[in-house]
Amino acid sequence: MNIICNKSKLIEGINIALKAVPTKSTMAILECIVLEAGEGKIRFISNDLELGIETIIEGQIKEEGSVAIHAKVFSEIIRKLPSDEVTIHTDDNYMVTISGGKAKFHISAKSTEEFPYLPDILKNQSIVISQFTLKDMIRQTVFSISDNENTKIMTGELFEVKGNQLKLVSLDGHRISIRRVFLKESYDDISVIIPGKTLIEISKILNGGMEDEVKIYITDKHALFEFEDTVVLTRLIEGEYYKIDKMLSSDYETKLVVNKREMFDCIDRTTLLIKESEKKPVIIDIKDDSMRFTMNSAIGSMDEEISINKEGKDILIGFNPRFLIDALRVIDDEEITIYMINPKAPCFIKDKEETYIYLILPVNFNV
Amino acid sequence: MNIICNKSKLIEGINIALKAVPTKSTMAILECIVLEAGEGKIRFISNDLELGIETIIEGQIKEEGSVAIHAKVFSEIIRKLPSDEVTIHTDDNYMVTISGGKAKFHISAKSTEEFPYLPDILKNQSIVISQFTLKDMIRQTVFSISDNENTKIMTGELFEVKGNQLKLVSLDGHRISIRRVFLKESYDDISVIIPGKTLIEISKILNGGMEDEVKIYITDKHALFEFEDTVVLTRLIEGEYYKIDKMLSSDYETKLVVNKREMFDCIDRTTLLIKESEKKPVIIDIKDDSMRFTMNSAIGSMDEEISINKEGKDILIGFNPRFLIDALRVIDDEEITIYMINPKAPCFIKDKEETYIYLILPVNFNV
Repeated sequence: MNIICNKSKLIEGINIALKAVPTKSTMAILECIVLEAGEGKIRFISNDLELGIETIIEGQIKEEGSVAIHAKVFSEIIRKLPSDEVTIHTDDNYMVTISGGKAKFHISAKSTEEFPYLPDILKNQSIVISQFTLKDMIRQTVFSISDNENTKIMTGELFEVKGNQLKLVSLDGHRISIRRVFLKESYDDISVIIPGKTLIEISKILNGGMEDEVKIYITDKHALFEFEDTVVLTRLIEGEYYKIDKMLSSDYETKLVVNKREMFDCIDRTTLLIKESEKKPVIIDIKDDSMRFTMNSAIGSMDEEISINKEGKDILIGFNPRFLIDALRVIDDEEITIYMINPKAPCFIKDKEETYIYLILPVNFNV
Repeated sequence: MNIICNKSKLIEGINIALKAVPTKSTMAILECIVLEAGEGKIRFISNDLELGIETIIEGQIKEEGSVAIHAKVFSEIIRKLPSDEVTIHTDDNYMVTISGGKAKFHISAKSTEEFPYLPDILKNQSIVISQFTLKDMIRQTVFSISDNENTKIMTGELFEVKGNQLKLVSLDGHRISIRRVFLKESYDDISVIIPGKTLIEISKILNGGMEDEVKIYITDKHALFEFEDTVVLTRLIEGEYYKIDKMLSSDYETKLVVNKREMFDCIDRTTLLIKESEKKPVIIDIKDDSMRFTMNSAIGSMDEEISINKEGKDILIGFNPRFLIDALRVIDDEEITIYMINPKAPCFIKDKEETYIYLILPVNFNV
């Protein structure tokens, strides 16, 4: 193989491919990026067996071929080369010569024979969504997946298409996060579970443009995301997702309209008194038109009050402050509406159209 | 105690005082900042027994008094308060109430009885130097102190005044770094060893202004740095410093003039092939008007060549690339002059006036 590329284009491609390179793997070949020059295209391919990425790099092919090169070493060398033009050449023994300006590196690389190439995916219907919306939906739900591998399904997100609606759902036993958008077209029903970790990596690669589209293809085992010069393939989590509709209730005894920023800052301040390992609830006393936050810990105590608009009963309720913070952080509305039933029942933060619903379980506390 | 201060002034003071607060100490009182209101001044005091800091905060004293409050908790609370005006009040049981806007924190603090206040220092002659110069001199030498506590003297820097010259020296057994400046006035001779770690903290507090001065007082056991509203006191390291003059030679067989940036970048690239734990030399082949850098490691090899101006013999010599990088990084000159004798003898990087001298020992290598 012998190719000539622009340094910044190479770095762009490397940054994308690196998202599917494990930092440490028992299979050394997975720590590599495959460089493939053929059919007029230069491709970077990486695969950690959960997530696979293929991205196309602009450049000039002098000689076709392929090689698997250690991703971290390759990335560092390209970044530090002194010139804009970079030549990458491999010989028959998989010795790679990378030259830019007067600097010349010789790195021993590997054959691509053992590399797990991405499987071919049957491309049926493609769901089309803007990069901006998909990236946003992932950000607004992925924080409440579980990292407990024993409940595998909770480590993923429900990806559900019904007609022209797409819904993303995550839950971890203490809370549920739901985001829903309308798509431009209607599709056949889909309901699959995508690993949360791969969604995080995908959202990092998405440039987030309003006008830029992603095409999503779903098969039995995989979800494939196609955009610009890049294809990202993720395995699905097997099994059936929780029946969340049963957990959502529209009853309430107390309804609050609150300034989101004020509430967020108050709760954020209560967490200053909690050490990392500690579990201390923030106690919220809702009375008439005020909401009072109290925290007591070994370090000290704090209280603060904000004005609210309330309908219904007064209530005294406790929460894990971290859960409230996580939800408030990803809501873009200035004013939010919170629904409560009693100090033992889940509280809901949601907008009128239910484009987002955050369910959070309260915690017990001693006054 | 009862004081009212501006939030940003408090944060400035906390940031200074934090430099002498150990993150973890067997003496809980050292993890505190002392707040002291008296004689019309509000002081923050911290002391880790090597380094002690006293800094004055603007504010209004409603009631005099003092209290020792956990530094990290105090710092985090002040930073997150919602208002510009902050009230700090203590009761007789050392319960501190910090209020800003509607937020109110109650923190249990400590009496200042057990706190190791800074000793009184006899202020004899004060050496006056600009903050900029002192900060710069520390940066340009402190990287080559040793972190081996068994050779305590090497963990410090020589601080030497002779007439109107101030010299800072550090060494770690493989290299020596020397910086020398002329002071505005002449002083009595001084030769003391200041702990490198405290110099690093002092240089962080110095704002680095050309016009802002530091006054330095030296006693048998301490060095005291006085500037703006802050006083920093450091213990000295006991003992006699190494006789470095004997190690400095002005003989050479090879003299090079090199573009610093080019040489730095070349050596920086060679380090891409070294894993952290590995010790691999960069081999430098100086022949006629060129300097060729070569690195061979388990990862691969690299070579690169730059143009130089040479007087004297050709030479093939090996170095720990890290040592060259450390020295080149802190030299501000665009062109540097390097003196070599033979592949076993130290090399010198210095300017004509010897305002800086970097001595680096070469390493053995197999070609």
